[in-house]
Amino acid sequence: MFNSFGNILKLTTFGESHGTAIGGIIDGFPAGIKVDFEAIQNELDRRKPGQSKIVTQRKEPDTVEFMSGIFEGVTTGTSIGFIIKNTNQKSKDYNHNTDVYRPSHADYTYDKKYGIRDHRGGGRTSARETANWVVAGALAKQLISHIEINAFTSSVGEVFMVKPYQDLDFTKTETNIVRCPDEATAEQMIEKIHEIRKAGDTIGGTITCVAQNVPIGLGEPIFNKLHAQLGQAMLSINAVKGFEFGSGFCGAKMRGSEHNDAFLADGTTQSNLSGGIQGGISNGMDIYFRVAFKPVATIMQHQETINAAGEATSIQGRGRHDPCVVPRAVPIVEAMTALVLADFYLLNKMRRTQ
Amino acid sequence: MFNSFGNILKLTTFGESHGTAIGGIIDGFPAGIKVDFEAIQNELDRRKPGQSKIVTQRKEPDTVEFMSGIFEGVTTGTSIGFIIKNTNQKSKDYNHNTDVYRPSHADYTYDKKYGIRDHRGGGRTSARETANWVVAGALAKQLISHIEINAFTSSVGEVFMVKPYQDLDFTKTETNIVRCPDEATAEQMIEKIHEIRKAGDTIGGTITCVAQNVPIGLGEPIFNKLHAQLGQAMLSINAVKGFEFGSGFCGAKMRGSEHNDAFLADGTTQSNLSGGIQGGISNGMDIYFRVAFKPVATIMQHQETINAAGEATSIQGRGRHDPCVVPRAVPIVEAMTALVLADFYLLNKMRRTQ
Amino acid sequence: MFNSFGNILKLTTFGESHGTAIGGIIDGFPAGIKVDFEAIQNELDRRKPGQSKIVTQRKEPDTVEFMSGIFEGVTTGTSIGFIIKNTNQKSKDYNHNTDVYRPSHADYTYDKKYGIRDHRGGGRTSARETANWVVAGALAKQLISHIEINAFTSSVGEVFMVKPYQDLDFTKTETNIVRCPDEATAEQMIEKIHEIRKAGDTIGGTITCVAQNVPIGLGEPIFNKLHAQLGQAMLSINAVKGFEFGSGFCGAKMRGSEHNDAFLADGTTQSNLSGGIQGGISNGMDIYFRVAFKPVATIMQHQETINAAGEATSIQGRGRHDPCVVPRAVPIVEAMTALVLADFYLLNKMRRTQ
Amino acid sequence: MFNSFGNILKLTTFGESHGTAIGGIIDGFPAGIKVDFEAIQNELDRRKPGQSKIVTQRKEPDTVEFMSGIFEGVTTGTSIGFIIKNTNQKSKDYNHNTDVYRPSHADYTYDKKYGIRDHRGGGRTSARETANWVVAGALAKQLISHIEINAFTSSVGEVFMVKPYQDLDFTKTETNIVRCPDEATAEQMIEKIHEIRKAGDTIGGTITCVAQNVPIGLGEPIFNKLHAQLGQAMLSINAVKGFEFGSGFCGAKMRGSEHNDAFLADGTTQSNLSGGIQGGISNGMDIYFRVAFKPVATIMQHQETINAAGEATSIQGRGRHDPCVVPRAVPIVEAMTALVLADFYLLNKMRRTQ
Repeated sequence: MFNSFGNILKLTTFGESHGTAIGGIIDGFPAGIKVDFEAIQNELDRRKPGQSKIVTQRKEPDTVEFMSGIFEGVTTGTSIGFIIKNTNQKSKDYNHNTDVYRPSHADYTYDKKYGIRDHRGGGRTSARETANWVVAGALAKQLISHIEINAFTSSVGEVFMVKPYQDLDFTKTETNIVRCPDEATAEQMIEKIHEIRKAGDTIGGTITCVAQNVPIGLGEPIFNKLHAQLGQAMLSINAVKGFEFGSGFCGAKMRGSEHNDAFLADGTTQSNLSGGIQGGISNGMDIYFRVAFKPVATIMQHQETINAAGEATSIQGRGRHDPCVVPRAVPIVEAMTALVLADFYLLNKMRRTQ
Repeated sequence: MFNSFGNILKLTTFGESHGTAIGGIIDGFPAGIKVDFEAIQNELDRRKPGQSKIVTQRKEPDTVEFMSGIFEGVTTGTSIGFIIKNTNQKSKDYNHNTDVYRPSHADYTYDKKYGIRDHRGGGRTSARETANWVVAGALAKQLISHIEINAFTSSVGEVFMVKPYQDLDFTKTETNIVRCPDEATAEQMIEKIHEIRKAGDTIGGTITCVAQNVPIGLGEPIFNKLHAQLGQAMLSINAVKGFEFGSGFCGAKMRGSEHNDAFLADGTTQSNLSGGIQGGISNGMDIYFRVAFKPVATIMQHQETINAAGEATSIQGRGRHDPCVVPRAVPIVEAMTALVLADFYLLNKMRRTQ
Repeated sequence: MFNSFGNILKLTTFGESHGTAIGGIIDGFPAGIKVDFEAIQNELDRRKPGQSKIVTQRKEPDTVEFMSGIFEGVTTGTSIGFIIKNTNQKSKDYNHNTDVYRPSHADYTYDKKYGIRDHRGGGRTSARETANWVVAGALAKQLISHIEINAFTSSVGEVFMVKPYQDLDFTKTETNIVRCPDEATAEQMIEKIHEIRKAGDTIGGTITCVAQNVPIGLGEPIFNKLHAQLGQAMLSINAVKGFEFGSGFCGAKMRGSEHNDAFLADGTTQSNLSGGIQGGISNGMDIYFRVAFKPVATIMQHQETINAAGEATSIQGRGRHDPCVVPRAVPIVEAMTALVLADFYLLNKMRRTQ
Repeated sequence: MFNSFGNILKLTTFGESHGTAIGGIIDGFPAGIKVDFEAIQNELDRRKPGQSKIVTQRKEPDTVEFMSGIFEGVTTGTSIGFIIKNTNQKSKDYNHNTDVYRPSHADYTYDKKYGIRDHRGGGRTSARETANWVVAGALAKQLISHIEINAFTSSVGEVFMVKPYQDLDFTKTETNIVRCPDEATAEQMIEKIHEIRKAGDTIGGTITCVAQNVPIGLGEPIFNKLHAQLGQAMLSINAVKGFEFGSGFCGAKMRGSEHNDAFLADGTTQSNLSGGIQGGISNGMDIYFRVAFKPVATIMQHQETINAAGEATSIQGRGRHDPCVVPRAVPIVEAMTALVLADFYLLNKMRRTQ
């Protein structure tokens, strides 16, 4: 239950950043789906380190090997096991951290919780885990291929995408390394990240995700509301500090007469401040939400901290880390969105009789 | 799975606003806990309608009846069944809505999903369901009585509590009807709600929740991160549009060198921008988060909409509704927080050997 | 998880024999099913005490009250809450047992596990709990009304039904109080139970259950095999000591050349020693299995035992108990079978694409 | 949920007999356990093909590779991923079966359920899957090392172990290839299997399992009764047709006055016909149960059957198969028993407060 996600389409994962491999098992995937392996690899490539100058220079080929559940290119309905080998685990980079707690990392909490610490690159806490999610999400996308899911970088520090998503051309997201579909804003963002990296620092940002052509009726009413499950999915991603959908935190300042989302004659709604979800269930309008990422904790600067013995000491980042996590997190946000929607899509098949 | 919450301490619920009763089953509650029934009723009273001039005037005594799992005032370790009778269900208030979809309500999505609609006060979508959660949360609080959980109204519309929570005296939260522990801000909020109600309108707001004395080590690393579970819990509450913890959306604008939360010699951290959670696991510092509520959808104004046949029509709210949901949601936020923390508290007992 | 049964169609229950009520929540039941309440009550009547001379004379009307999930006689897709009030709880009958452990009852294990004991009629361990299952099973039957489920008493002590089930007329099961569709055997069984009761003793027996018109494909391959889930369901019933399906324990003595179940041209199989299940999945043939019940532990005879202080003492049954549990267990076996089949029926809807 | 087993200590698996590897993820295993890798390999060797003359001559080294969750030989509390490579998959042996349904195999049901068939050695239905269980069970044994679990072959066809288990020396189980701790009976069993194999036939049998030094209080009262979970575990093993514990099917013939299991002054019981479990919870006495295995379906004889087109055809087994599955199933029964007991052992840690 701790390393699993989903109700019916369930992903269970394992793996430490610096072990031999990470991997997972996808359970509940229906039979008879032709798998597009290239599309899966493509998603992994969008997430992988070393892909551009503004991300970590750690190089991992991130090649997924499927070991079951697919026969002659088609899913069989049985559990899909896969691994991604770790090929470039420079554990030596981390040896100096053996007993020092890095600020804003999970070293301290893991050590206290488990009484044991895998200090190699954060062990299980490493964001490398999310490569597993991208594999599962890429498969999920193929199950719900009628739904379009597009995430993009909507802010880096104080540089914001100010245009509404309706004015953007999502086919442009991949044309730049920061994954912002607006060229001018993308340039500013990239410049900001370069500046931050030179300072040995890191910076936060936000990702906006839009799901379109979502069928009406996805989501369960009480504790599996569509947006609650999306929220949990996003808050599971490393470095995420907040989630809002539709009107979000702005909605908290509004009046009902402004906020209400009037129905038009064709069943669509006027403002879609609802964000495509009403009462936890999709209403057929665009689903959109925003995810906040804090700055990466590993900075190339001197920091005061303590070690496992509780003694004051200091630390300076030396591994290969991202100055801003957001560009590489775009495919992760999409993958988790796909997993949530595919899960509810399958659940919905049981909802009505006949 | 759809009407259940929690991993080990599991709440399963049922009930429509206008049926004979709502209720639930709490499973996994340990044996041997002496139950303070008055404390439970007290929490229900904080949530109940009709408690003050700024909430709905619908009157429900909201008395919980426990039917199992407690013997001679002590929990037995078996499942705890309870009901809360609905005594004041004026279904007639709702008869005019039989086939009209109320804007920003879940009428439309339920009808499309289930092919059937219980139009009496929203059926299962009614926030009356949250009375069940308050019962379970009040019991959970008694299980983790060493942890202090305090929520309060931190904004109503544009009226914000500007003081940091550290400067507040939580014993003052219940001294005013809006549940803001700062007297001056509370007055402004109450005034704002009165003004909104007179206009036949509604308004959104936010609640901040602080959990103190939380043991180190609560939360599971990957998909049951403490903040992800809190996020899902909060996003399950009716009208919630956003969740952020620690630095939240502000953290997305910051640099790593500003944001990092340095360890002090005693194991505490300096800024607690982490919000008491690192890598999904509590670090012993205060946990704090903020929840955004949209304005209540039922307004006493004329609105254009459609009916089940897709014909344009109009609607005007007539039932007894809240102008601002936030004051009554404060005990709900606390209850769900208690459920999440108690669940992880129990889970943690199995984490280590010996 | 402890008081819940089922994957998708999930029953969660509560209740002690001598509390105010027992009850449950059925989650995952699809919308749009017209409920036959009389059929549900009829199943409860088959299980209820006091129905004939060979069962306990305790009288409980066992009337179920549905509190949610059904609107105007049709299921709404939301959780179905129900209670059955306890009206005849003579706790005084049990007061003498306060600290004595009754042999072959669960008094000792509950006391040791939970450190607390609800001595009133066994508390949660009472078979009264199974009335909840009968309600849920009766609803499940209505969901899969194309499947015919027939259980019957196949032995009482050494009195066995020797005819194969194919030679029986299931419409005769309810024509006698022991629920054996063969008149002559039924008479012998009834006589045996009378004799046993007069001796202040109790006796074991077996129930055979046959499910016909089961669609091909129910069951999941590895850990939710159809027969494994049926086995767990049956072993959850009080007093059950064994489960076998198809050739069962006899199959363990056979050779492959005798046991193999050859396919005929129409897709049916020759011997059906498989019991309608191959590799955990239904093959469309009759599913049949047998369940062993030990004799009821409460006998009207003097027995040596110990009390909570570990002192030797003696006990003599005084409450109102069944001399043989099997006749009343027939509807329970059917109910649990219906729950398992309905659960897999719903799961199967998601198995294939398109 | 379909390929997972356990509540808290959860095993999720994948893999087809003739893919590149099988494997699994063990979730919920506590931190701080020193792993004895040799003991794990030893259990795999007990299960592996080719180990003696009375089992299939297919050769698989069955070497497990752990990929996560263990650091410097000690469990870390995170999920444990492992694979076992398939090195000897002679798919050609199976090519002739492409569209023929083998009698008493799962070819037909899988094909009908999933609409796709992996005909290579049965795909996911192959008992090779149980190697995964042996790995997980061997780890579970190390978690509950104070409990002794001993299974043995108690019958092969009509050759029965007639001595009660109390008269056996379990250290002798591994001294012969059929895994029966009584030398004389073992010889008869081996002779029987040789005879059957020469005839190109197969034969069924039973395994008895005994768990000793089980703490009082394992098991959950209603739907997770200890024996119900053991039953489900055993019925998940390929070829199992029945399960009984304690007095089992014999108990169904007994009277209460014979069957009741009187408490002695020291809290032990006299007859232990209860099989160490009362009300679903362990009472500290020996737990013992018996599992029935049908004969292996693949025989080296000519059999009539049909193909996917529904045409009559015939088949003759050609792969390398076991004449009797029971000797190799002994470690599987022990492994699943260990998983069930370890799961309840962890669950029990949360049962009481303090």
